[in-house]
Amino acid sequence: MKTKAIFYHAGCPVCVSAEQGISAALDTQRFDVEVVHLGETSNRLGEAENAGVKSVPALVIEGQVYHINHGADLSALK
Amino acid sequence: MKTKAIFYHAGCPVCVSAEQGISAALDTQRFDVEVVHLGETSNRLGEAENAGVKSVPALVIEGQVYHINHGADLSALK
Repeated sequence: MKTKAIFYHAGCPVCVSAEQGISAALDTQRFDVEVVHLGETSNRLGEAENAGVKSVPALVIEGQVYHINHGADLSALK
Repeated sequence: MKTKAIFYHAGCPVCVSAEQGISAALDTQRFDVEVVHLGETSNRLGEAENAGVKSVPALVIEGQVYHINHGADLSALK
């Protein structure tokens, strides 16, 4: 079974760079990568917040949050 | 030919987490991942700095720097 990886972003330039550079570089044989645009699916903001996401872009894998560079604070998306 | 990915770290807890979570999750069919401990190989600090690394852990792929969370500033390793 694959490990779930969720990449949260908001369409910002820093987000796009991280998506292309990191999210797309993950091993899809081992990871099921979901890309969530929090600007367009704001109903998932709570889920991201609960996972510990403080800013985007961020990647959540097995309960660990990895903030990659800094595009926007989560609070700016509310 | 594989794309080179260099993961710079300093052995800190945040670094170890990022190494296990992100660096180890990269697709090794497409990426040749090198892990560099800047605390032990300080002769590579200049190279990291030139690549744009400001803090560790950081991953450099195709000239792009991805700072993953924040363990230590590069200046603290000099």
